[in-house]
This record gives sequence, C-alpha cells and structure tokens, in this order.
Amino acid sequence: MDQPLTRIRSVVEFDAHTFIAGTTEVVTEYALTVFVDGQEFATLVCTPADFSELVVGFIASEGLLEKIEDMRSLEVDEEGGVAFVRMQRKVEINPDHFAKRYITSCCGKGRQSYYFYNDAQTAPVTTIGPLLTPFEVTELVSKMQSQSDLFLETGGVHNAALCDSSQIVASRADIGRHNALDKLFGYMLQQHVSAQDKVMVFSGRISSEVLLKVAKMKVGVLLSKSAPTDMALQMAEELGITAIGFARGDRFKVYTHPERIVM
Amino acid sequence: MDQPLTRIRSVVEFDAHTFIAGTTEVVTEYALTVFVDGQEFATLVCTPADFSELVVGFIASEGLLEKIEDMRSLEVDEEGGVAFVRMQRKVEINPDHFAKRYITSCCGKGRQSYYFYNDAQTAPVTTIGPLLTPFEVTELVSKMQSQSDLFLETGGVHNAALCDSSQIVASRADIGRHNALDKLFGYMLQQHVSAQDKVMVFSGRISSEVLLKVAKMKVGVLLSKSAPTDMALQMAEELGITAIGFARGDRFKVYTHPERIVM
Repeated sequence: MDQPLTRIRSVVEFDAHTFIAGTTEVVTEYALTVFVDGQEFATLVCTPADFSELVVGFIASEGLLEKIEDMRSLEVDEEGGVAFVRMQRKVEINPDHFAKRYITSCCGKGRQSYYFYNDAQTAPVTTIGPLLTPFEVTELVSKMQSQSDLFLETGGVHNAALCDSSQIVASRADIGRHNALDKLFGYMLQQHVSAQDKVMVFSGRISSEVLLKVAKMKVGVLLSKSAPTDMALQMAEELGITAIGFARGDRFKVYTHPERIVM
Repeated sequence: MDQPLTRIRSVVEFDAHTFIAGTTEVVTEYALTVFVDGQEFATLVCTPADFSELVVGFIASEGLLEKIEDMRSLEVDEEGGVAFVRMQRKVEINPDHFAKRYITSCCGKGRQSYYFYNDAQTAPVTTIGPLLTPFEVTELVSKMQSQSDLFLETGGVHNAALCDSSQIVASRADIGRHNALDKLFGYMLQQHVSAQDKVMVFSGRISSEVLLKVAKMKVGVLLSKSAPTDMALQMAEELGITAIGFARGDRFKVYTHPERIVM
C-alpha cells in the first residue's frame, strides 16, 4: 500500500484583512529505519516515495556499496517503516562512524507519529500567551526579513528570531537551520529569558524536528514564511503550539491553535 | 581569534550573454566537536559564531540540560574546533540515542578542511565531460523549475534532477535534501546509469555534504539556484567538480572548474 505524499488539513488563512477557514494540502514526513545484515544502521526521515532507491543511494553514500551487485537483497516494509538490506560480503559497521537516531518504541498510536518523542522534556506548552494580532504577525515576519535579507541572499543561511509580540529580542543566522534555533535556545538559557510571551520567527520549513525544538524551548508560537509538514502539525496540535506558515506580505496560514491569534 | 563568517573567492559570472571574472563573498562552514564530561558527543557543522550559545542550546535540545546551572563549565577552543562541557551531575550518554558523526584525524592541512573526507570512495572526478554551453545551463535549471514548482511551493520540498546536457534524465523530490540526492544515487546504481555525461541540478544550497555526495556519484557538474559554502567550494576545487550557484533566469556563477562551461 502506497504511503500518502500529502494530506489535507484544516487551516485558517488570513488574507486581505480577514480570516477564511478552509483546507490545505501539506506534505507528509515518513521515518524509515534501515537495517544492514540485521544491524540497525540509520533512520531516514523522508518523503515516502522511491524507498529502494533511497536505501541503495544512502548506503552507497555511506560507503557500504559501490555497485548494486554488492547488495544481496533489499526488503522494504512500508507499513512498518523498516528496510532490511543484506550485503554480499560482510561489511564492518563501526557505529561511531554513522549517524544514528534513536527511535522510541510504539506508543499504541503507531511509531510514525512518535519517532521524535525521544525525551521526557517534551511536554505540551501550556501557557496561553502570547496573543498576537494579524498585524503583529506580519510585522514580525517583515522585521526579520529586513534584518537578515543580505546574509540570507549572499549566504543561503537560515535565520531564527526570538520575538515578543512587537519586536525582535534576539536573532541568529546559521548555515544549519537547527543551529540557528539551538543558538537561541542557548541564549534563552544563558540570559534566563522567559519563553512565556515569546514567538519564534523562522526562515525555514516547519518540520517535525523544528517543531519539537520550539516545544522544548516552551515557545508557544512558531511563524515561518515556508511550509509545514503534516507530522510537525500533528505535534503542534498535541503540544499546544500555534504553527503559522506561508507568512508572506500581509498573508499567512494558521494551521494549529488559532486561539492565540486575535483581532 | 574570531573565525571568519565569510570568505572572498574568485568567480566567473555569466550575465547578459557574457562572462565576467571577479570575486564574490561566500559563507564559511565550521565543524565544532562537542565533548560532554570527556566523552565525544556530537559534531555540529555550523556558522562560526555564538559558539557557547550553540553548545548550550544543542545539549539542552538533546535533553542533557534543563537550566544553565546544570552545566558546571564550558570551554570552547575555536582554533581546534572543540568544545568541552562539564556537567554538575553525571549524565548518562547512551551513544545509540545521539547523532554522532565521524571526524577524520588531521591530514596536515588542519581538520576543518577535511572533516568530511571520511571514506575511501571520495576520489576526484576525472572525467572531462560534460561540457555545457551557458544556454544549456540556464535551460536545465528552467526545466527543473517548471517541473517541480507546484510541489516545491505547497510542500517546501527539495528537488534534485539528474540531467544530460539537454534534458532531465530523472528527478526526485524529498523533504530531506540529502534524500533527494540519495534517491538519484540509488537510481543510477540500480539502472546502471553512467555518470560520465551527467549534470546534477539541485534546488538547495551547495554545502560540503551535498558536494561530497555528488562527488561520490562521480557527477562532474553541480548546478544550484542557491548559494555555496566556502568549504564546499574548496572540496569542489580539489575533487574536480564544476560548482555553479545562483543559477536564476539567464544568470549564474561558476565557482570552480569553469573549463566545462564553453561558449
């Protein structure tokens, strides 16, 4: 059975000074855990298509395979999210050399929704605030854009800005989008900055990893000019985070917890 | 001593039907290896600024730290590319739970330039071809764009297209930019497609990881509409790859090995 590449979700769109409730299409995220000769090798978070190409290309990239004949068999269990590779000759897998990501066991709801819930820190953001007007949303995005455009343009770096409802408190740019968020997390911890009234404005896509980072920071609103994934939105729903995407000009889409956006 | 955020490199720019040689500014990539209580924890590839915030935020993201007082000390050696964290209380680090990346030892040229040269597969691309005219460059980029715009827009996914000098041979989209390249690598291996006359057109930034993947695929030309990093260009220079960035409309910048672009 094919995995869906997109899913339809409800959304509240702000456009031309008014809110319109409707539906929208968002891409899915899928976790595929690859075993090589019975040993867990890596988990790839991917768009669920072309699984066998992905596995072959990944293990070739990691230096385990030079030609397709080096592989004896490949079995992909799409339902279970696992792929089993058997090599012709035994390959040495030194776990230190490879990126490995921890996957929690199933929680009764299927592992795909839970693969990132990997530590006890991840609890719902329970604060009500900040409350933002549509004008404040578009102003924050425009402030981040105007501040960072040059470096973004010449460098292709990502930018994250920690804001209150009216202005940027701190912003960090990095070639790694996770790093930009981690730097702000470090800033908040070092400076004892409260997350309670804060908004994160982020230049990149709202993936599940990004959403989870913002949840750990206990920031209740995430604004992005880019698209979210379905899994990130599932998490945002459960973790109490207002996820806003496609914030461009005076338009934006509120995917979850719209109660923090007030007229 | 502060690490540079950007470096000046020579470039050949194609614009208004002519080539202009000049210089341009590109962002740097920096590898910081984090040790926690003497144990290697992770290597972060980052923009070299705000190191202590990055380390604190990263270990907080990974669940090792809840408040800054949980950390006894933090020492960052910018020259060596290492950070040493000491925690107040012993934390359990299960290596299976964390992303760890292998770093090769120094090769006499300093580890920063070599941290990704981690397997024997990475040898220079020695093929002369493909040779491309400026028209072919801009046509390939425009073909990828027109094919993928819808999914890119609604989904924020990355796209990679394996091309010959005139057309797309195969293209793959994925929420993970590395996955899009890995899928094409898998396709090439499974279908026994020769890399010799091929060009990779990629929607994302040319980072060192992306460059290295293309080198492993033995593809000699990498085209992107986005920016390259300095480390990726160092590698492209050494590995014999023509790296072209900011390919938009009928303009593009050739950063390395311009001999493959012919009038």
